[in-house]
Amino acid sequence: MEKIRCGEMTSPTSGHAGGFTQANLVILKKDLAFEFLLFSQRNPKSCPVLDVSEAGSSVARKFAPEADLRMDVPKYHIYRDGKFAREVMDITEYWQDDMVAFLLGCSFTFEEALIANGIGMRHNDEGCNVPMYKTNIQTEPAGIFHGPMVVSMRPIPKDHVVRAVQVTSRFPDVHGAPIHIGDPAFIGISDLDEPDYGDAVSINENEVPVFWACGVTPQSVAMESKPELMITHAPGHMFITDVRNERLGVI
Amino acid sequence: MEKIRCGEMTSPTSGHAGGFTQANLVILKKDLAFEFLLFSQRNPKSCPVLDVSEAGSSVARKFAPEADLRMDVPKYHIYRDGKFAREVMDITEYWQDDMVAFLLGCSFTFEEALIANGIGMRHNDEGCNVPMYKTNIQTEPAGIFHGPMVVSMRPIPKDHVVRAVQVTSRFPDVHGAPIHIGDPAFIGISDLDEPDYGDAVSINENEVPVFWACGVTPQSVAMESKPELMITHAPGHMFITDVRNERLGVI
Repeated sequence: MEKIRCGEMTSPTSGHAGGFTQANLVILKKDLAFEFLLFSQRNPKSCPVLDVSEAGSSVARKFAPEADLRMDVPKYHIYRDGKFAREVMDITEYWQDDMVAFLLGCSFTFEEALIANGIGMRHNDEGCNVPMYKTNIQTEPAGIFHGPMVVSMRPIPKDHVVRAVQVTSRFPDVHGAPIHIGDPAFIGISDLDEPDYGDAVSINENEVPVFWACGVTPQSVAMESKPELMITHAPGHMFITDVRNERLGVI
Repeated sequence: MEKIRCGEMTSPTSGHAGGFTQANLVILKKDLAFEFLLFSQRNPKSCPVLDVSEAGSSVARKFAPEADLRMDVPKYHIYRDGKFAREVMDITEYWQDDMVAFLLGCSFTFEEALIANGIGMRHNDEGCNVPMYKTNIQTEPAGIFHGPMVVSMRPIPKDHVVRAVQVTSRFPDVHGAPIHIGDPAFIGISDLDEPDYGDAVSINENEVPVFWACGVTPQSVAMESKPELMITHAPGHMFITDVRNERLGVI
């Protein structure tokens, strides 16, 4: 974390701090905090809440009590009225007394568990980002927040699909079990080669595309609602918490 | 539900509507809703949120879309400034446009699973309420909400304790796994024969007291914060949802 705070590390965090939970960051002003928390409660597969700061506090007491969320993420994105405005490495000058920071679970945690179970991640093998797609699955709205679920896709060998369901079911706080297995058309995806976010990956003959709810959903939904000011991590540049992945496993 | 709405059924709901999830009800005004939802998010074992209404709506869309939370609970308690004011069978006249209703998980769901696994419930056998105790475990505060965790206790035969942990771990939305097994002094309980709520039950020689986080915690904590107006179900007179217990099981 020292390297991040002093600006030495500004690269994507995938593969760093192995074993420790990485998190998506969403910062909103307090007047939207209840509706965003409610949206997350209603859509736990897309928006698994790990921690929420007190209004005005930049500390996540449960997941990283010694970190300062204003400077301990490698890169931040500032959005104004739902539009990308700037990328910065420190948000101290943007911070306001009525801001609430949300840490949301990230699939890096369950990917580590899948790999430990002998299920490889194609996007790692191909050195690219995981492919992500908008679906025809509507999230449960809450207040101003509404919109379609975004999913990530990983090709899984046919004989490992059941194990992939079991392994990720143990981690409901980082998207949990898949939301769909197989035919992408069933959830409104017309072409796996054209992801809405990230990069396309190859799918081998003995493999099935498996889809998980994705942490891009809350950012995508929040952006569509055009809040006056929203701050997030830059994609792939996650917040690294003090909590070990395995601590998020249920039974 | 017809019998409840027309006032024919005003008795405790334990043992009624077998297989369907019963829920604790807490109604607060919107200005406290964010802090209460945040308190619940930080204390998921005591306060597992099943559903939250939109402000001003008395409908729980996910768990009982056809019910009206103002009249479909057998008995309600009205609290003013943290003090019990009245017991009523219908809260239509107390309802306000800025009220938010929270449904929280209830241990009746995991008790049914324990019984299905051959683990009997002593308080059922002895025809009384489950014993509940204040502990020395502090909840994670959020805004004005803070206070000790309340637990329920069930005597479990020594050779069934591991199974009881496994069975209840499957149901995180209704308090989940126990928070303590064995010596009550360890969590600040001096005398099992003097519960703070409910009734004492007998513990046999081959049995261990096992403690679960209890849904009385959020009511107890909310009362201590003395909200101007709070409405809850009357103890034991739960809201019966449309969702089957087994739907709440993870894997």
